[in-house]
Amino acid sequence: MSAVLDLACDLIARPSVTPDDAGCQALIGERLQAAGFTCEHLRLGEVDNLWATHGSGAPVLVLLGHTDVVPPGPREAWQSDPFAPQIRDGVLYGRGTADMKGSVAAFVVAAEQFVAAHPQHTGTLAVLLTSDEEGDAIDGVRHVARLFAERGQRIDWCITGEPSSTTTLGDLLRVGRRGSLSAKLRVQGVQGHVAYPDKARNPIHLAAPMLAELSARRWDEGYESFPSTSLQISNIHAGTGANNVIPGELEVDFNIRYNPHWDAAKLEAEITALLDRHGLQYTLKWHRSGEPFYTPEGTLRAAARAVLAEHTGRAPEESTGGGTSDARFIAPLGAQCIEVGPVNASIHQVDENVRVDELEALPGLYQRLVERLLV
Amino acid sequence: MSAVLDLACDLIARPSVTPDDAGCQALIGERLQAAGFTCEHLRLGEVDNLWATHGSGAPVLVLLGHTDVVPPGPREAWQSDPFAPQIRDGVLYGRGTADMKGSVAAFVVAAEQFVAAHPQHTGTLAVLLTSDEEGDAIDGVRHVARLFAERGQRIDWCITGEPSSTTTLGDLLRVGRRGSLSAKLRVQGVQGHVAYPDKARNPIHLAAPMLAELSARRWDEGYESFPSTSLQISNIHAGTGANNVIPGELEVDFNIRYNPHWDAAKLEAEITALLDRHGLQYTLKWHRSGEPFYTPEGTLRAAARAVLAEHTGRAPEESTGGGTSDARFIAPLGAQCIEVGPVNASIHQVDENVRVDELEALPGLYQRLVERLLV
Repeated sequence: MSAVLDLACDLIARPSVTPDDAGCQALIGERLQAAGFTCEHLRLGEVDNLWATHGSGAPVLVLLGHTDVVPPGPREAWQSDPFAPQIRDGVLYGRGTADMKGSVAAFVVAAEQFVAAHPQHTGTLAVLLTSDEEGDAIDGVRHVARLFAERGQRIDWCITGEPSSTTTLGDLLRVGRRGSLSAKLRVQGVQGHVAYPDKARNPIHLAAPMLAELSARRWDEGYESFPSTSLQISNIHAGTGANNVIPGELEVDFNIRYNPHWDAAKLEAEITALLDRHGLQYTLKWHRSGEPFYTPEGTLRAAARAVLAEHTGRAPEESTGGGTSDARFIAPLGAQCIEVGPVNASIHQVDENVRVDELEALPGLYQRLVERLLV
Repeated sequence: MSAVLDLACDLIARPSVTPDDAGCQALIGERLQAAGFTCEHLRLGEVDNLWATHGSGAPVLVLLGHTDVVPPGPREAWQSDPFAPQIRDGVLYGRGTADMKGSVAAFVVAAEQFVAAHPQHTGTLAVLLTSDEEGDAIDGVRHVARLFAERGQRIDWCITGEPSSTTTLGDLLRVGRRGSLSAKLRVQGVQGHVAYPDKARNPIHLAAPMLAELSARRWDEGYESFPSTSLQISNIHAGTGANNVIPGELEVDFNIRYNPHWDAAKLEAEITALLDRHGLQYTLKWHRSGEPFYTPEGTLRAAARAVLAEHTGRAPEESTGGGTSDARFIAPLGAQCIEVGPVNASIHQVDENVRVDELEALPGLYQRLVERLLV
């Protein structure tokens, strides 16, 4: 077995369902320490975080990953035990193979090989791991980034190993992500009998013009390579079930995926003003899942594009689509962020997998990227 | 015990939770038959109906009532057993005392006394009872009225014993009721992930302008003594609970209480046109609960007003407010309909009750009303 396959299997065999690290970071910390890294284990609440550095000063390049996985669901839905990695027809199966124990193993192997080849490299190479990327994402990289801001820890470049590829390894380079902002809106009315509407205030009727305006609103026309900002009402509920009762309250949940034209505070102010214009009596609870980030053309993007093109033979698609990742917490520290990882077709599904040849190509790919930045 | 109190207690002791008659109509049928009435027991589905007549030809005056009651709820919530009538401080307690076994007992006693005093009265005095007023209202008076229409059964006047009084017996004379029309609307969209709105169609967003128009619509400015027609959305639901999923369908239930300016068919056509103008993909299921009825000034209203004024010392309020009753099925046969009954403050509640002195006044009140119409 190759070094990366060996380590990936060791990690996959640890059932580190979020936020449980199940010993992954201890194993990785030992490996990196043996390679000359300084390791800091940050246990925050229920969450394990590892900050391992080699070298010193600027520029600081971080390899960012997570050791936790999403729950596997029923064992019988899988062809083989999700926590007993198995290779069938050149494909490695197991929970976390693609998201993202494969990348984490590749980070470790790449870091070992890089510092062995370039013991006197410029700046700092760091590995940052958390066990809370798939869960609440509170005591993971969000918390660590707050500590870094307090310490004045500088980060220039951050490469996340999230499974960004769509069909073959390296076909897509993620250069940004939209922000995500959620809200729970409760519009107050007065309950009553439908036969006596004058004694009640129907919150559905009161809110309907506001809902129409909120739904119709065009937020922007996009930003750089980002799609336009989109608000979607995901849940709406009112009523007792009886058809002769005017409900007393309307519940509306919505989520906004927004590009860097906006930030959460601006959106919250805009929507609060809209609600107030409609004269509604309401409560509104916001949940900020993460600001958008965007890495424009520059050293990091150019290096990644070159390395991926070298590997695949063609320039990767450079995209800002998709969900969200821990890069959202690192970007506000002033870091340029990109995501480069394996094919994401099977993530969060049963029989999650990664091709063995692509897994084995990953350490070299990361190593060449680090060399372009720190040598 | 007076005759009416005696019979009321006999009826209340029978736990005739809708649609179970629990022997009430057999008891009443025997009494009326003994008094010279011809009785027809109409068992329709699960429902008992009794049609008892005395005399022949026009005019036909019907005393309309129901022997079923709404469920009492938990026994322990009541001060005394809901099906063991009990008098405390001059008040009779039990399920159905006010709605409407008290009135039914008063009908029987009034009918007995009237035919004894006026064996050769003009026209026909009829008593019509059902055990399905509080339930589905399908095999009760709705069904009987259809049979009557087929037979060509004429009805000139109908007095329903529903508890119409608000504070003291006879303070209100109900001369009409609004119609009630319900709808279950389902607006179709396409489910998807909030991060990819272009691949989904959010039914909440699609429906919002329609909901705003439906809520804002003024239907009319009232009709005679009726309040204006009112549409109320009673239930609205969409969403999986997750805040990152665009729902595939929106459920909206609404109910319309309408005055005789409208009928169900006109409302259905109007609302369907509104939905179609908004270009929605939807299904819509209507439930017609009953057309409105209205009895303008005339013989019946004048007689009832005079009798109630005689009893209370002042003219009753004449109202078209409130919910709905079985008179809605009799009115379309061409009958003038009114509702005269006890105080409704405790109906459908625990410790339902009627004042004994008011219950004992009721047979005389009905008898004088019948005398004004059939002597």
